[in-house]
Amino acid sequence: MSAERTIALLSGTDQPGLVARVSGWIFERGGNILHADQHRDMEANIFFQRLEWIPADEANAQAEASEFADFASTALGMQAQVARGGERSKVALFVSKIDHCFHDTILRFRAGELAGDLVCIISNHPDLRPEAERYGIPYHYIPISKANKAEAEAAQVKVLHDSGVHLVVLARYMQILSAEFLSALQRPVINIHHSFLPAFAGGRPYHQAFTRGVKLIGATAHYATPDLDEGPIIHQDVTRVSHRHNIADLVRKGRDLEKAVFAQAIRWHLEHRILIYNNKTVVFD
Amino acid sequence: MSAERTIALLSGTDQPGLVARVSGWIFERGGNILHADQHRDMEANIFFQRLEWIPADEANAQAEASEFADFASTALGMQAQVARGGERSKVALFVSKIDHCFHDTILRFRAGELAGDLVCIISNHPDLRPEAERYGIPYHYIPISKANKAEAEAAQVKVLHDSGVHLVVLARYMQILSAEFLSALQRPVINIHHSFLPAFAGGRPYHQAFTRGVKLIGATAHYATPDLDEGPIIHQDVTRVSHRHNIADLVRKGRDLEKAVFAQAIRWHLEHRILIYNNKTVVFD
Amino acid sequence: MSAERTIALLSGTDQPGLVARVSGWIFERGGNILHADQHRDMEANIFFQRLEWIPADEANAQAEASEFADFASTALGMQAQVARGGERSKVALFVSKIDHCFHDTILRFRAGELAGDLVCIISNHPDLRPEAERYGIPYHYIPISKANKAEAEAAQVKVLHDSGVHLVVLARYMQILSAEFLSALQRPVINIHHSFLPAFAGGRPYHQAFTRGVKLIGATAHYATPDLDEGPIIHQDVTRVSHRHNIADLVRKGRDLEKAVFAQAIRWHLEHRILIYNNKTVVFD
Amino acid sequence: MSAERTIALLSGTDQPGLVARVSGWIFERGGNILHADQHRDMEANIFFQRLEWIPADEANAQAEASEFADFASTALGMQAQVARGGERSKVALFVSKIDHCFHDTILRFRAGELAGDLVCIISNHPDLRPEAERYGIPYHYIPISKANKAEAEAAQVKVLHDSGVHLVVLARYMQILSAEFLSALQRPVINIHHSFLPAFAGGRPYHQAFTRGVKLIGATAHYATPDLDEGPIIHQDVTRVSHRHNIADLVRKGRDLEKAVFAQAIRWHLEHRILIYNNKTVVFD
Repeated sequence: MSAERTIALLSGTDQPGLVARVSGWIFERGGNILHADQHRDMEANIFFQRLEWIPADEANAQAEASEFADFASTALGMQAQVARGGERSKVALFVSKIDHCFHDTILRFRAGELAGDLVCIISNHPDLRPEAERYGIPYHYIPISKANKAEAEAAQVKVLHDSGVHLVVLARYMQILSAEFLSALQRPVINIHHSFLPAFAGGRPYHQAFTRGVKLIGATAHYATPDLDEGPIIHQDVTRVSHRHNIADLVRKGRDLEKAVFAQAIRWHLEHRILIYNNKTVVFD
Repeated sequence: MSAERTIALLSGTDQPGLVARVSGWIFERGGNILHADQHRDMEANIFFQRLEWIPADEANAQAEASEFADFASTALGMQAQVARGGERSKVALFVSKIDHCFHDTILRFRAGELAGDLVCIISNHPDLRPEAERYGIPYHYIPISKANKAEAEAAQVKVLHDSGVHLVVLARYMQILSAEFLSALQRPVINIHHSFLPAFAGGRPYHQAFTRGVKLIGATAHYATPDLDEGPIIHQDVTRVSHRHNIADLVRKGRDLEKAVFAQAIRWHLEHRILIYNNKTVVFD
Repeated sequence: MSAERTIALLSGTDQPGLVARVSGWIFERGGNILHADQHRDMEANIFFQRLEWIPADEANAQAEASEFADFASTALGMQAQVARGGERSKVALFVSKIDHCFHDTILRFRAGELAGDLVCIISNHPDLRPEAERYGIPYHYIPISKANKAEAEAAQVKVLHDSGVHLVVLARYMQILSAEFLSALQRPVINIHHSFLPAFAGGRPYHQAFTRGVKLIGATAHYATPDLDEGPIIHQDVTRVSHRHNIADLVRKGRDLEKAVFAQAIRWHLEHRILIYNNKTVVFD
Repeated sequence: MSAERTIALLSGTDQPGLVARVSGWIFERGGNILHADQHRDMEANIFFQRLEWIPADEANAQAEASEFADFASTALGMQAQVARGGERSKVALFVSKIDHCFHDTILRFRAGELAGDLVCIISNHPDLRPEAERYGIPYHYIPISKANKAEAEAAQVKVLHDSGVHLVVLARYMQILSAEFLSALQRPVINIHHSFLPAFAGGRPYHQAFTRGVKLIGATAHYATPDLDEGPIIHQDVTRVSHRHNIADLVRKGRDLEKAVFAQAIRWHLEHRILIYNNKTVVFD
């Protein structure tokens, strides 16, 4: 994401002239619109737009971004999120012991593939601390049990707020987040579920898939909500399996799916490409 | 399927020497094995095999096929289905009003893509009779209502038995088959369901998919059982959708999936490539 | 394509304010923009846009469409194609003897899947005339040989111009179109090539693929140009093959690819979703 | 690969009774055949088979493996490779500076996904030495220039032979291997090429793909031969791109393809699933 760009995500009740008024506002200030994707949900009568533009006056760009947000909400009655390309989001990664998404995500951040910075790792197990240290990323070991769940989650929230985290990603984190945690966190959380949701929600989806005899297995990245595995779906993919594959094969093949689907969802989020409504997502890819 | 070939599908409790004993039996009689796929379910301890061979003496091939079936069941304790390549299966197609699978399946039979003969069409609506007549295929209009369901199904079974049908395929037939029908029919039935089962079983799967906001839609071909949408899955495929697609788009995109998945399942069945166990399928493709 | 809509495809040198000026023009006239996709080729500095809007005054919509085209070319220096949703394009289908794309395309037109009308079929063989008649579509048998190629092509062009055709689609038409034909025709031509171009251009691509031992086979829909198999690619897809597939299997599997890829390309063209530049396509899907 | 298993790959002129004679040989010695995949190239009249069995007497299994190889070549005239499941292949990884396949492959070896041991890394650059050391894998920096190519390759061969390497994998190694190197090495070499071969062979395939305007990009894993990018293809996959993707996007999306395709090819090779003939592969997956 080039530092000089401003990115806005708008949504709200559809009304005539939105495209013209929004682009006109930017044009009048000398901005150069690079991308202007939009979408209408005809039934729900909602308008969505993602804009990327280069402001005329970079020194004043931050102020202009705020003005644009005001304009969108006041004059157009739209919800607006406005970001500057140079503001890199801070990301925290949650992990338990399973490490393929952990390594894959870290390596993608290191390769510059994701428009943000991985600032900390939180785990309910100490196992991956040496790996995290090799990568030079702070590792917070916060054990969780039934007895201490509330305290542990409070400790997690404190770490996340202290680190100024904007996004939490669950890299096969094997704990259910409570509604209280999500409510205290006030930040989006992306989870990777190892099935093609809504098929095989809940635990041990590869075992469920094997038992049902499906011919494709999948992975689903979604925003976490208090309803487990029911949050807005961001991305999904599948791969073919046959009677020749046992559960261990499904787990292995699934790892590649999980890594790719998870990374794509994180990428889109960090590039401000996702809008949520009605428990669904609009992804301007 | 070349007429000179014999095809056998075997399944049963695994035991040492099965591959050797089966292939030895054929070799001793001068047969030339062309394909010998096998599979073991290690947990369930079941052995599956599909054999295709050219008997030494074509004049005696039918008798040899029976002897092989006896050998498999008596000496090996296996269940065996044995067919000759020249015996073409007779197929009946059920349809309501939606016609894409209807046309697609008929054209594939006409093109010689499927190793069988489409001998009749049964519908609960008269709409597609003129199309069936254009194709020169007998069309049986058997209306079904709550009131006459038992009689109508009995009439269907009579047509199917009178026509000597070996396989029934449901090309988007919008009626639920009763357990009594399946029991009276005693023939396999392949259904095409317009979702990636087990997601979105039941009615209006594209609407369900749209509401849930999935990013892939699917189609599933399965054997019909008394439990609706719960039968053994033969084949599945998916295609990508996004927020840009409304329900009509899903229906349109799904049509292509349904046609291809349905045809593949029929093809495999007619080539004697499918074995069923534990409500799953082994497909020797 | 709803009859009340106006659709515009614009392209030209990028310049600040294009999005605002275009949408402003429509807004000032009371139009309601439904879709406004755009793209920038940053290196080539070209701007592309597809607009779909409902004019305020339907009675005057045709005139407004012309004014918009004038505005785009005069004020903005853009190339513009403007169409009304109610103007259905007329399509001609060329075919030889291979009939899977022929049936598939005709059935899709009949099902209302494609925003145009199939007005005639031209073939260098008489074989598919009875099928065309069953479908009720005029069939022009124009034999072609080395000796009569120029006359035959002239006869084709006459049929096409007399029928008022806007688009020609080659459904596995096994003749090379001369540069003279394309030049006289002055209409876009969509071809389906049975490989993943640029691999296996030229004749017998499935044989080439089999010999090379590729693990995927493909199909490519592209606009025909005087350079055989070198025109702008509209759509491509592939399917997996293995050592188990012989050439006949590749041909059979390829048929499904060809049908789907061909139909998608025709659909996009008829919905005015494709812009061509630098021998490539921008597809606003 | 369980240690107690014996795996054989056979190929040679087809002849009646091969399946029976091979399985009979194993059965007579009390072996339990777990898998017996076979394939016939009907045109070339070649028979291929992969067998996996548990010998009756594990203490004698190594000797039996040799006897089987003798039997196959002497009695059946087949080429045979026989391996014991416990013999783990030693693998060397070549890399230059691009590191995604490097990390991915190492992590898969560490995760136990690949049936072999990564024993050394050879590079023409020193850049990835610290990473290799973090992973604890010996790193041999052997610079190559036009002037020293022969000496450098000789040094590489010496390292590989001294390390007892069975397989070399080129993880985006940006040097062409000479025919002399391959001839001196006498070990299979797997390369990952970043295009859907045979399209875009040679250098900068993503640039070539971008210029041609293809709608899918691919990756191909193949055995290296003296003819660059012409060796037997093991595995290929593709992913969709559009006009919205610039070359940097193609490179990024291609990385995921390359990793997955490369790993799959290495996996199959190490599990003795690949036979080569006529510059093609039979993959018993």
